[in-house]
Amino acid sequence: MTLSSTRGISPEQSAREEELAARVQASFDSCRDPRLKELMQALVKHLHAFLREVRLTEEEWHAAIEFLTAAGRITDDRRQEFILLSDTLGASMQTVAINNDVRGDATEATVFGPFFVEGSPGIEPGGDISFGAAGEPCWIEGTVSGVDGDPVPGARIEVWEADEDGFYDVQYGDGRVAARAHLFSGEDGTYRFWGITPTPYPVPCDGPVGKMLEATGRSPMRASHLHFMVEAPGCRTLVTHIFVRGDALLGSDTVFGVRESLIKDFERRPPGTPTPDGRVVDGSWTQVRFDIVLAPSDVRG
Amino acid sequence: MTLSSTRGISPEQSAREEELAARVQASFDSCRDPRLKELMQALVKHLHAFLREVRLTEEEWHAAIEFLTAAGRITDDRRQEFILLSDTLGASMQTVAINNDVRGDATEATVFGPFFVEGSPGIEPGGDISFGAAGEPCWIEGTVSGVDGDPVPGARIEVWEADEDGFYDVQYGDGRVAARAHLFSGEDGTYRFWGITPTPYPVPCDGPVGKMLEATGRSPMRASHLHFMVEAPGCRTLVTHIFVRGDALLGSDTVFGVRESLIKDFERRPPGTPTPDGRVVDGSWTQVRFDIVLAPSDVRG
Repeated sequence: MTLSSTRGISPEQSAREEELAARVQASFDSCRDPRLKELMQALVKHLHAFLREVRLTEEEWHAAIEFLTAAGRITDDRRQEFILLSDTLGASMQTVAINNDVRGDATEATVFGPFFVEGSPGIEPGGDISFGAAGEPCWIEGTVSGVDGDPVPGARIEVWEADEDGFYDVQYGDGRVAARAHLFSGEDGTYRFWGITPTPYPVPCDGPVGKMLEATGRSPMRASHLHFMVEAPGCRTLVTHIFVRGDALLGSDTVFGVRESLIKDFERRPPGTPTPDGRVVDGSWTQVRFDIVLAPSDVRG
Repeated sequence: MTLSSTRGISPEQSAREEELAARVQASFDSCRDPRLKELMQALVKHLHAFLREVRLTEEEWHAAIEFLTAAGRITDDRRQEFILLSDTLGASMQTVAINNDVRGDATEATVFGPFFVEGSPGIEPGGDISFGAAGEPCWIEGTVSGVDGDPVPGARIEVWEADEDGFYDVQYGDGRVAARAHLFSGEDGTYRFWGITPTPYPVPCDGPVGKMLEATGRSPMRASHLHFMVEAPGCRTLVTHIFVRGDALLGSDTVFGVRESLIKDFERRPPGTPTPDGRVVDGSWTQVRFDIVLAPSDVRG
């Protein structure tokens, strides 16, 4: 029994709705850009299928218009509510998944997020990206290689993360640059650096998307993570995160970015444990390994 | 052969995409409002089906975010780009169709549009709604009855329309009130008034929706029409238009509001033809009949 039949839609009514949907699709028939035509006609098809399936009321239609209007009002150069909406509906991650068909052993991609900034400081191998950001020190090391297993020297590795209070540098609005940097893999494809142990944080909740999460009983929290973007000649650029094994939020990351293959062991070392590079650390620190495998640039999903 | 198979999506990739869509749907499982849960889960299902069918690229995703951002930026108290988007994608008319399942001989509904204003002036039977708006005079008359054929006395009939330059009074921004009024049906259910002959006009085109219409080769024009909203105790409120038979735009109304049953004969009378009420008109005028049949208020689609 379909939804329609349970709600007593007559065949005449159903035909009327189908005719309308077909007429809207046909309005794009003379679009000269074949890809744009495909996108618009598919959008109309799925949009009308949604409206008809749920039997959207006129009050609900008004609420949807108000939601979009509120999202537009809160969006500015530093706040992007439409991206947050796409993220929380899983549309961002689905787009990533569609465009990053995993082949062989290449590392999986995940969402880019809104906190990347161009022009991060460069650090030497073994350097520290924190630049004063608060948090437990974390030693990150690994290799960059191709799917053939050969090391990739000179790969540009961009990393960024929130501090232990759950904020990225740009969220403070005071111009600080912290917990972000770039470095390069060595001749043998290896890399290593100090960062801070990732901690969970909520997405911005003071707009309509936050209200939607609250109204639907969803958590606004993101699972703890550290962002990577890795570029090398001849390789497909990789945008990904690593997540912390054991984090209670792995199963409920509010932007659906978690991939099993990206969950890593962050091993906690007690205070006084010698570090890999002889650095003296007050208190505990963690250590994680992340071996990165880049797909060749000509492989697309 | 499905779209997926033509583009070489592996079963593993397809399973990965399906798993993600299912995970996003499941994130709404604990929503306590059953209708909100139904709406969000259906939205996610159709949104992800769209993304997967068209294999949305990351560049196209960015373009969609920019489109919504631009729509938000241009929307204010007097301009509603999200309603215009809904209108031009046929979503507004589909919502009207879903909620106004036609029963028996009740008059069909169509889109409300953005130009209704509360508090219009009242006129007596046979009065003139134009209040100085430019246009060819038009005599409109008819009856209001129930689906049983009995006349409906005292129905409140609200009417509004654009002037011959294609603008509603509110678009001038000078506070004028013109080409809008309300009146009541008489004891025998009849009504009559003077308005102006409807002419075609474009929807606002200086925003992202206008760019979408242009990029896809669609016309921004609305077919000529006169708005009605009719309310009476015990009857379902009717929001509709009447359209002008012979209008070249009937087949391409950009908000898909035209219904065959709403196309009426506006008969043009040469200069000097006596009017039904003895009014002296300079030049030609038109005459149209619109018999309105209201559904009982307990009938829903």
